[in-house]
Amino acid sequence: MQLDGLSLIAGHPAPARAKKFHAIAPATGARLDPDFHEATSADVDHAMRRADEAFEIFRQMPAGARADFLDAIATEIMAAGDELLQRASAESGLPIERFQGERARTCGQFKTFAALIREGSWVDARIDTALPDRQPMPRPDIRRHLVPLGPVVVLGASNFPLAFSTAGGDTASALAAGCPVVVKAHPAHPGTSEIVARAIYRAMASSHVPAGAFSLLHGTGADVAQELVRHPLTRALGFTGSERAGRALFDTAAARPEPIPVFAEMGSTNPLFILPGALKNRAAAIAQGLKAAFTIGVGQFCTKPGLVLALGGVDFNAFIEQFQTQVRGTTPATMLHHGICDAFHAGLDRVKNIPGVIVLAESDADADPAKTQAEPIAFATDVETFLRHRELREEIFGPYTLLISARTVTELEAAAHALPGQLTATLHADGTDLTDFNDLLRILDRKAGRVLVNGFSPGVEVCPAMQHGGPYPATTDSRFTSVGTAAIARWARPLCLQGFPESSLPDALRNANPLGIQRTVNGTLTRDPVAG
Amino acid sequence: MQLDGLSLIAGHPAPARAKKFHAIAPATGARLDPDFHEATSADVDHAMRRADEAFEIFRQMPAGARADFLDAIATEIMAAGDELLQRASAESGLPIERFQGERARTCGQFKTFAALIREGSWVDARIDTALPDRQPMPRPDIRRHLVPLGPVVVLGASNFPLAFSTAGGDTASALAAGCPVVVKAHPAHPGTSEIVARAIYRAMASSHVPAGAFSLLHGTGADVAQELVRHPLTRALGFTGSERAGRALFDTAAARPEPIPVFAEMGSTNPLFILPGALKNRAAAIAQGLKAAFTIGVGQFCTKPGLVLALGGVDFNAFIEQFQTQVRGTTPATMLHHGICDAFHAGLDRVKNIPGVIVLAESDADADPAKTQAEPIAFATDVETFLRHRELREEIFGPYTLLISARTVTELEAAAHALPGQLTATLHADGTDLTDFNDLLRILDRKAGRVLVNGFSPGVEVCPAMQHGGPYPATTDSRFTSVGTAAIARWARPLCLQGFPESSLPDALRNANPLGIQRTVNGTLTRDPVAG
Repeated sequence: MQLDGLSLIAGHPAPARAKKFHAIAPATGARLDPDFHEATSADVDHAMRRADEAFEIFRQMPAGARADFLDAIATEIMAAGDELLQRASAESGLPIERFQGERARTCGQFKTFAALIREGSWVDARIDTALPDRQPMPRPDIRRHLVPLGPVVVLGASNFPLAFSTAGGDTASALAAGCPVVVKAHPAHPGTSEIVARAIYRAMASSHVPAGAFSLLHGTGADVAQELVRHPLTRALGFTGSERAGRALFDTAAARPEPIPVFAEMGSTNPLFILPGALKNRAAAIAQGLKAAFTIGVGQFCTKPGLVLALGGVDFNAFIEQFQTQVRGTTPATMLHHGICDAFHAGLDRVKNIPGVIVLAESDADADPAKTQAEPIAFATDVETFLRHRELREEIFGPYTLLISARTVTELEAAAHALPGQLTATLHADGTDLTDFNDLLRILDRKAGRVLVNGFSPGVEVCPAMQHGGPYPATTDSRFTSVGTAAIARWARPLCLQGFPESSLPDALRNANPLGIQRTVNGTLTRDPVAG
Repeated sequence: MQLDGLSLIAGHPAPARAKKFHAIAPATGARLDPDFHEATSADVDHAMRRADEAFEIFRQMPAGARADFLDAIATEIMAAGDELLQRASAESGLPIERFQGERARTCGQFKTFAALIREGSWVDARIDTALPDRQPMPRPDIRRHLVPLGPVVVLGASNFPLAFSTAGGDTASALAAGCPVVVKAHPAHPGTSEIVARAIYRAMASSHVPAGAFSLLHGTGADVAQELVRHPLTRALGFTGSERAGRALFDTAAARPEPIPVFAEMGSTNPLFILPGALKNRAAAIAQGLKAAFTIGVGQFCTKPGLVLALGGVDFNAFIEQFQTQVRGTTPATMLHHGICDAFHAGLDRVKNIPGVIVLAESDADADPAKTQAEPIAFATDVETFLRHRELREEIFGPYTLLISARTVTELEAAAHALPGQLTATLHADGTDLTDFNDLLRILDRKAGRVLVNGFSPGVEVCPAMQHGGPYPATTDSRFTSVGTAAIARWARPLCLQGFPESSLPDALRNANPLGIQRTVNGTLTRDPVAG
C-alpha cells in the first residue's frame, strides 16, 4: 500500500499541510517514508463536525449492524496482512512476532465487543411499569437504557501500536457503544496508524457506516490533542500515556465551559510483595517470573512491576541472588522511540543519585545507543530510603525495577501506605501468608484496581471481570476500565423515557423485548416480555 | 429535643466556635434558636480523619448489617416525630403536609437502598474462571465486584430539607455503598439537620456502626464546603444546588493533586413542548398541569418546567388564555430563604428588561416581602428573541415560566438545538405528534437525562429506571443519577481480584455464591455457584 501521510477525515484525505514530520525506525535510526502532514485547527473542526453529523445516523443503526461493522474491522485488519506487521515493527522496534500476538488481541477485541452488542444486554435496560392506582399518586411508566455520549476522541498510545492505538480498545469500545471516534495518531507510528485507518474505512464502506464516524489526525506536539479536547462537539476522551500528558488533558477537559469525562490511563509502579512463605518456597520461580515481567516489551507495559517489596533476611537475600543472575542474563533491546529511551536513562540517573539506592544487577551486555536500546536493570534500597525519596514512587517506563527490603511488617505496611494509586498490586503468598498479612492486603485493595495473588501484572485479559484502571494517578477515573467488556460503559449515559407509547420506544425498552435482552423489570432481572 | 447548635463529629459535639449564625423563619422573618457554630478547618480535618478510620470497619461490615443500619435510620427519623416536621416547616416556610410527604420519601429511600444491598446483586460481580489449558497462554482466574470509594462529602440542598439534605438520597446511597459520609448542613435549615443527624447517630448506636461513618458540619459560606472538597481523604462529593456553586466545587475537585468525582445536580429549565395534536385536544388539562408543575414547592424544584414551547397560532392562543386564568388564580407563597427570594426577583427583573418579552400573567394577589413571598408569574416571547438573549436559557429558581411561540417547525427545532443540557425535557403529544416531530425528539434525547411524554417533570420517582441527571450544566456527570437505586453506583469502583484462593475471596465472589446474588460467570448472568 502506498502511504500518503495525510490525515483522513470522514474517509477522505485532508489537504496537504505546511508542517510535516516522519517516523524513525528506532532500531536503526533510519527515517521512514513518507512525510506525514500535521493536522490543523481546521482539520480538527472538520473531523469533529463530520463526527457529530455521523452520530445522528450511527447511533440509530441497529446493534446487529454495528456489530457487523466491528467484525468487518477485524477482518480488514487481518487483510492488511504482513505490511501492517512490518510497518508496526519498523516504527516501534518491537519484533514481528509480538505484532502477530498484538494483532490477534486487537481483532479479538473487536469481535468481543461485536458479540457484546449483538447480545445487547449491556445497555442495562430497566423498566418500571405504571402503577395507575398507587396512593397518594399514580406512578407513570418509566424506562431507561444506556445511550452513546456522542463523538469521542482517542489518543493513540505508543506502547501498543495496534491494541491501544488507532483501532485499540478505546476505539473498539467507543464504536461498539455507538460513538463516532476521532483518533489522534501517535507520531511514533503514523504509518501503522494510516494502514489501520484504511482498514477501518474499508469496513465502513462494506457496512454502510457513515464515513464521519471515524477520522484519523496526525500531529507531533500536544496542540492537536489539546484542540480536540477543547472542541465543543467532543463528548469524552480516551488516553493511555504519561501522567504529565494525561493530567494536562484532564485539566483542559475540566476547564471547558462544558466539562467532559477523561479516561486517562497513566500507568503505575505495580508493586509486587513477596511474602515469607512464598519467598522460602518459590524464590527461583518468582525470580524468573519477575525478570520476564519487568523486561517484557522492553519494560514498556503499563503493568510492569517497578517495585518489589519483601521482608529482608536470608530468604530475601537468596531470592536476590537468583534474581541477579536472571537480570544479568537478559539482553538489551530497542525501545519505542528516542524520547522514551532518553526518559528511561534520565530516570535511572535520578535513581542512581539517591543515597541509599544501589544497583543490584544489570544486563551483562551493553545497550547500543544507535539502536535506541535499553539495558534491563534492577536497583535495591530499604523502606526508610524509599519513604524519604518521593521520586522512587514514580514510574520509570522501561526495563527497570526497584527491590525494597523491610526490616519489619510495620515497615512493609508503611511502604504500602505511602504508595499512590495503582493499576495493580501483587502478592506472592504461600501457606498462611495471606491470612498473616491480611492488614497489608487491606491497604493494597484501597490502592489498586486489580490485586493479584501469585501472578505477574503484565498480560491484561480482555474479559468481563477485567479491571484495567485504578485510583489516581493510575487513571483519572477509577470507576472505569480501559480493558475488558466493561470498557464500553465509559462511552454511554443512561437515558430515561417516561410515559412513552410503545410505538415510540426503542427496541431495548419495548414490552415484547424483541432483542431478547436481560432487563430489570420492576426490580427483577429477566428476559421475559412485559405484559402490555 | 434541646438543639445545641454544634457540629457533630463521629457522634460527639464539636467544640463551640467563635463564628455563629442562626436560622430565620422565612414566613415571619423571626430568628430561630439556637445559635449554630461554624465548623473550622480543624473540624473538617477531624471529621474526615474519623471517616477514614471508620471506613476500614464500615466497608467490611456484612451487607445485611449495613442494610439493618439503613432501616434503623428510617425508623429513627420517624421516631423524631412532629418536632422534625415543625422545625423543617419553620426553617423552610413550606407547610407541614409537604414534610409528611418528604419524610415518607426520605425514609422510603433508606428502605429501598437497604433492600438493594440486602439482595446484593448491585455489586455487579463478575467471575471469569481460569483456563489452564488455553493456548498460547493459560488464563488466570479473574473476579471483580464493586467496592466503596471511601469517605464522601455531601452538601445538603436547601429545597428538600429532608429528601436531598442531611439524610437525603446522597447520604442514603453512599452509606448503602459502604462509604462514610460527612455532611455539610445547609445553613437555611441547621436545626432540621441537627435533628436528623441525631436520628442517624441513634441508628448507628443500635446497629454497631462506627461513629466516624457519619458527621455533620455547620457553616454559612463556601469555606467549609471548599475545605471538605480539598481534604486529601475525601473521595467524592454529592451536591444539589446552583450552577455557580456546583461549578466552583467541581473546579476545586478537578484542581486537587488527586482529582475526585463530583456529582453536582445543578438544575435546568426543563423545557416542555406542546405539540399540535395535544394543543388542540388537551389545552385545558395541560394548562392546569403546567400551572401545578411550575408552582409546586413555590417553583423550587430542580425539575420545574421553566420553558414552554409550541407552534404559535389559534390553538396556542387558546391555551395561553386558559393558562393565564390558571396563573392569576394562584397565591403567592413563602420561599425557602431571603437569598433565594431575592435571586428570584432579580431574575424576573432581568427578564422584564429584555425587549420582546412580555408578562403573560401573574398571581392576582401581591407577594408579601415580610413573608419572603414569591408571586407565580409567566412570561411570553418568540423564538427569535429567545435565541438572541442567552440569559433566557438560564434557570430562574421559583414560580416562573416562559412561554415561547415558534412560527415554524424549523424555529421550534432551532430553539431546542439552542438549549443547554437538561435534567428533563417533556413533549405533550397526541395522535401522530410523536412521529411527526421525530426530529425534535431526536434533538431532545441528546439534551436531557429524562424525556417525558404527556407528563410533568416534577415528581422524581425513586425506582430502578429513574435517571435524575443530564448533560452539563444539568449535572456535572450525565453518566450517573442522584435519584433511584442506580444512585449507589456513584460511590463505588470495580476491584478486580486475580488468582485469589477461595478462602481469601469476599463472599460476593466465592464459588459457592453464599449471598445468592446474580453474577456474570464466564459471560453469562446466573445465580448458580461456580464449579470449584
